[in-house]
Amino acid sequence: MFITKLCAMKINPHISERAKNIPKSPIHEMTELSNEIDDVAFLSWAKPMSDTPAHIKNAAIEAINKGKTAAYSQTSGLAELKEAVTHKLKRFNNIDATPDEILISSGAIEGLAAALMATVNPDEEVIIPVPGYSSHIRQVEIAGGKPVMVPTKEAEGFKLDMEKIESAITSETKAILLSNPNNPTGAVYSKEQLEELSGIVKRNDLIVIVDEAYEYFTFDGYKHFSIASLDGMHDRVISVFTFTKTYAMTGWRVGYIHARADWIPQIIKMHIPIAICAPVVSQYAAIAALEGPQDCIADFRNHYNRIREQMCARLDKLDEIFDYQRPRGAYLMFPRIKHPDGKDSLSFAKKLLKEAGVSTTPGIAFHSEGHIRLSFCVTEEMVTKAFDRMEDYFGIKQ
Amino acid sequence: MFITKLCAMKINPHISERAKNIPKSPIHEMTELSNEIDDVAFLSWAKPMSDTPAHIKNAAIEAINKGKTAAYSQTSGLAELKEAVTHKLKRFNNIDATPDEILISSGAIEGLAAALMATVNPDEEVIIPVPGYSSHIRQVEIAGGKPVMVPTKEAEGFKLDMEKIESAITSETKAILLSNPNNPTGAVYSKEQLEELSGIVKRNDLIVIVDEAYEYFTFDGYKHFSIASLDGMHDRVISVFTFTKTYAMTGWRVGYIHARADWIPQIIKMHIPIAICAPVVSQYAAIAALEGPQDCIADFRNHYNRIREQMCARLDKLDEIFDYQRPRGAYLMFPRIKHPDGKDSLSFAKKLLKEAGVSTTPGIAFHSEGHIRLSFCVTEEMVTKAFDRMEDYFGIKQ
Repeated sequence: MFITKLCAMKINPHISERAKNIPKSPIHEMTELSNEIDDVAFLSWAKPMSDTPAHIKNAAIEAINKGKTAAYSQTSGLAELKEAVTHKLKRFNNIDATPDEILISSGAIEGLAAALMATVNPDEEVIIPVPGYSSHIRQVEIAGGKPVMVPTKEAEGFKLDMEKIESAITSETKAILLSNPNNPTGAVYSKEQLEELSGIVKRNDLIVIVDEAYEYFTFDGYKHFSIASLDGMHDRVISVFTFTKTYAMTGWRVGYIHARADWIPQIIKMHIPIAICAPVVSQYAAIAALEGPQDCIADFRNHYNRIREQMCARLDKLDEIFDYQRPRGAYLMFPRIKHPDGKDSLSFAKKLLKEAGVSTTPGIAFHSEGHIRLSFCVTEEMVTKAFDRMEDYFGIKQ
Repeated sequence: MFITKLCAMKINPHISERAKNIPKSPIHEMTELSNEIDDVAFLSWAKPMSDTPAHIKNAAIEAINKGKTAAYSQTSGLAELKEAVTHKLKRFNNIDATPDEILISSGAIEGLAAALMATVNPDEEVIIPVPGYSSHIRQVEIAGGKPVMVPTKEAEGFKLDMEKIESAITSETKAILLSNPNNPTGAVYSKEQLEELSGIVKRNDLIVIVDEAYEYFTFDGYKHFSIASLDGMHDRVISVFTFTKTYAMTGWRVGYIHARADWIPQIIKMHIPIAICAPVVSQYAAIAALEGPQDCIADFRNHYNRIREQMCARLDKLDEIFDYQRPRGAYLMFPRIKHPDGKDSLSFAKKLLKEAGVSTTPGIAFHSEGHIRLSFCVTEEMVTKAFDRMEDYFGIKQ
């Protein structure tokens, strides 16, 4: 231990322990490896494959042409956008919000980082149901907090495990941090699950920070519920949203937070020294996204649903290699690797990439070994290519 | 103390001490107050008043039209932009850089935040010459570090005080964090000053994090030097730049870092959970900014220089109220208030706003009482209006 630390110090005495302790992201390791290989079949993307809808792009262009994008906006965001967000929250999330409860952030990620810094003290614990999004864990660590990983019930579609959550609570627990729909499992938490979670949160005087990036993508009749809309939860929840997934805008870096009005100025204190304000051109695009036609969302959802069906059917044929829970939301799924090599998911994913030319994301990136994450935010042809290759590689008869 | 803490806890038990301990930003308090008053003469802006040059806007529009802006870029930024940055660093900053020494950030602010998180451990000290930029202090605090404020030599144009810096160094000192040209004083550190500082840094095995946002704006023949270009400093300096001030792009949120190649992946570990990547539309705009015609910079510089002369001349007439150091760079200056009310700069600035209709920024925002910051990034008419009002208010014969 001492020698390890000494070596680390010698290697780079100027880098913080915070940074050194973070292993190289398996996601980015896979991306780099993929770049070295020709003709990869990608099932590892979590970015929309389509371009941003034309009316949104045109609104951005109009704002640029009118000279509206040169200067900072208010740190909390453009008033017109905050107003549009309150209407969307009422319409879709059943959250009653006023503009002073809104902060426009540089994507959901910056909103989450600012929210955690504004709430979590050093050494306070934050419960994260896993499999969970790796950046959430990093954000808790950056705030000095301790991420406490609590497994979900895989066999029941990665449902929240209320008993495990409740027994993980200590006097140091500050918050529960989750994504709904879940990245990477595609789980969608039901109203009943969220009500039960709310009970735990209220009884223990905790708060919830929820990443609802995939809110519009649910399937098979499952519905997305915002935990902030439940009784007595308005003042205990920081809900984080983004335009990224809904409107194919990952590159634009714009999202928003809803929280009680007296928390917003506290979150802004963290938002200013990491962002100042969200990119203004993207804020104008976001206004058009909320106020323009919404058919693009149904189009994206239908496409993801079709690819999800295709992917599940192809996985059924690979049942000697993978077991899976049918995803109810997001555009992601998280099959368990039955193959004996699957215990080390990073090695498994690297081998699959090098030997079969298929790029997936190892489960270890989501704090859950023995799985890979597959994205169905791809084309039908990509799924066909990837699964043809895997069937061939694993010697499954086609 | 106990009661204060208890009250604070009661008022908002869910907010972190980190957030609670940050006072409301005097800059934003002034902005809010200004919004309540009609017809304010603003000398408080530090944002360019002109629109972004047309060729930069057109490049952004072209990228949007071509569908290049929907998806994330690499987390470190577009390869073409990193390449263009290396040429600019060689050309203007005399820094030899390779693309793997570059990280494109969401403005200088996000780059600074990520750099500090990647280097500063909890309780390590960071020396900040003051007057200094308030967000720098916040960023050190967010990283868990202790900002150690060291005064500069006001009478010598806010020169760095090497003796004071050297005597502030302890076994816990990690870095020196400064802006050059300086916000808020407009000081430009000479090559000799920076060489002397480099000696201190090397002797004490420290690093330097330098915010060079105003690098292109120096006057009276003074030249900007990048400390990273000095002998033996390439590997000890994280230099942070932005397109914001140079090309009138504050709203676009795009900047960049130069650091040694083995530090960049460490800084990226912090960049991912607070930003993922810089806004892609802005990255395309930034390529055009670096590769297109550069006359806009000279135009902006000439304008700021003209307004600077006007502002100094008008300050000369108010010499019973203010004393000032002629700024050599940035578009900011930091007069000392001779008036007896000036000891509390926030009250002074509020009174000046309410009673004379002139908006300035109180010195306390820069950790230096008894001063106000004035921006000469305004129109000639604005300076005339503001100073006519101040002469009238202070009863100075016109």
